[in-house]
Amino acid sequence: MMKSYRNAVWFSESERMPITNITSDVRECLVESGIKEGLVLINAMHITASVFINDDESGLHHDYKKWLEAMAPHEPVNSYRHNDTGEDNADAHIKRQIMGREVVVAVTAGKLDFGPWEQIFYGEFDGRRKKRVLVKVIGE
Amino acid sequence: MMKSYRNAVWFSESERMPITNITSDVRECLVESGIKEGLVLINAMHITASVFINDDESGLHHDYKKWLEAMAPHEPVNSYRHNDTGEDNADAHIKRQIMGREVVVAVTAGKLDFGPWEQIFYGEFDGRRKKRVLVKVIGE
Amino acid sequence: MMKSYRNAVWFSESERMPITNITSDVRECLVESGIKEGLVLINAMHITASVFINDDESGLHHDYKKWLEAMAPHEPVNSYRHNDTGEDNADAHIKRQIMGREVVVAVTAGKLDFGPWEQIFYGEFDGRRKKRVLVKVIGE
Repeated sequence: MMKSYRNAVWFSESERMPITNITSDVRECLVESGIKEGLVLINAMHITASVFINDDESGLHHDYKKWLEAMAPHEPVNSYRHNDTGEDNADAHIKRQIMGREVVVAVTAGKLDFGPWEQIFYGEFDGRRKKRVLVKVIGE
Repeated sequence: MMKSYRNAVWFSESERMPITNITSDVRECLVESGIKEGLVLINAMHITASVFINDDESGLHHDYKKWLEAMAPHEPVNSYRHNDTGEDNADAHIKRQIMGREVVVAVTAGKLDFGPWEQIFYGEFDGRRKKRVLVKVIGE
Repeated sequence: MMKSYRNAVWFSESERMPITNITSDVRECLVESGIKEGLVLINAMHITASVFINDDESGLHHDYKKWLEAMAPHEPVNSYRHNDTGEDNADAHIKRQIMGREVVVAVTAGKLDFGPWEQIFYGEFDGRRKKRVLVKVIGE
């Protein structure tokens, strides 16, 4: 019989462009779901943020932020038409597209079916927004 | 019992780089599927196009197009080896990789399980192609 | 009744930034799974590599590599803080984020539900790593 599970995980951050390891939060959801074989979707519920999988290494996270800022600079704020609406976060909407909205991970024998270094991160590019990640598991 | 649903949604556009809100098309598919809990995959069936989730704000869409053109300019056409084949759309194949091929969205209580501003878009970067999006729902 | 299938496909490459067509490997997994309707997830198990869908055209693959190198150059190696750890592959971690970790493909009537030109590729951006791709199918 197919089962499904849904949880919206909230958390808070103090930095402007935080990258937060949420792997253990997702693991807790998976245990709670009781699902052994299936797929888990983890997505940002905010459109200036990304969920992505990579290495838990602070130098790399520094490199990502520096590189994203070079690709889509926050300033000058008035170089983006989106910011004519009164927002100043057009760059964050672009950064999120580069890094992606979501990841889908295989669930095998009740575990995240990961390679040796894979960890799940929430990256927020406009730090004043609330942080909420959706975890949806389907399988059996 | 697991159910599945499949629909290929066609639509047409007049611009060269249109960004079209397809959220209501996907919602119609979801209702038609009768699936209440599961996942829905929405993907471009063309390799110069993207399906992505972000804000329905025309200034932002302008910013995306301008930024994508700066990242992977259409011209000079002969700077890309792909265009030696007689095509002139190498830049569109690159733009599509930045913006992504597909999104996967949770289905909860028969609805798209979205944050407050999430909307689904089809972005075509080589406007002469036909526009077709695949919607596949699995769940129960 | 929901079924699931899992296989980790290994392969080897000699180039530094190989792009390998793995569509037939995925098709073999799908046949082996016996699943007719559902979703298949195909993801890199390494964090300097991507699985993506695009055209099987060698000029385009050349364009991707040249463009990725311009976006996130390998050298100077010491311009990345990640490389202070003794690695020299920070650029590969960035390239992988641009091209994506995974694809999700619809399974319809026992086949990959593809548009006319869609093919699945494994792109490795730090060629010294082992190449392993996870294929997970769920459905019935």
